[in-house]
Amino acid sequence: MNKINIQQKISLIEEFWTPKIVAEMNNQYAKIAKFKGEMIWHTHENEDEFFFVIKGVIKIRLRDRTVELKEGECFVVPMGVEHSPMSESEAHVLMFEPKGIKHTGDKKSDLTQTDIGWV
Amino acid sequence: MNKINIQQKISLIEEFWTPKIVAEMNNQYAKIAKFKGEMIWHTHENEDEFFFVIKGVIKIRLRDRTVELKEGECFVVPMGVEHSPMSESEAHVLMFEPKGIKHTGDKKSDLTQTDIGWV
Repeated sequence: MNKINIQQKISLIEEFWTPKIVAEMNNQYAKIAKFKGEMIWHTHENEDEFFFVIKGVIKIRLRDRTVELKEGECFVVPMGVEHSPMSESEAHVLMFEPKGIKHTGDKKSDLTQTDIGWV
Repeated sequence: MNKINIQQKISLIEEFWTPKIVAEMNNQYAKIAKFKGEMIWHTHENEDEFFFVIKGVIKIRLRDRTVELKEGECFVVPMGVEHSPMSESEAHVLMFEPKGIKHTGDKKSDLTQTDIGWV
């Protein structure tokens, strides 16, 4: 039960697209990640995913549109909605999602993290 | 399913200690509030509460210590832990908590909001 400084935690992450857990509450995790480049298209059938941009700009591509999020903006990708996050430059993102969620949902790729730990 | 700009939503809130919902996911709400002054001591018996400081400085008083949170810092008050948030100057806070949570937990006061709506 210590406080968490998001920027300090972000500074400990070296690679892009490798989310790390920073807090746990109500069977959910708060995670942080550095985004740059493109994540694969995937779907979480049973979990909504909340994205909050701490720094930079990201795009969440949906099949019918693209949502651009700047610092201080957030968005929920509802369960069952295919999406592909991307960012042209380095961006820092805070996410909230249920504990059991799989990193790349129904898909697997070289980017898929199977054992997401704490930072 | 629109994006949410936290500062724009905060600007719509006039009173202190009146949380408003900005997003819903996995049976949880993301809420924002303006803090200034002191909230009553209270406990949520069945819900963890996540606080993230968007602007300013807050203190979360616990019975055995006080946790000071600056901009970009967060903290989880575990279920069952008595607490009293406060802030000397205006602060803006993002919170994550389960849908059914009561604003001031086991206590009621003039500050208690019984019908927390969206902003």
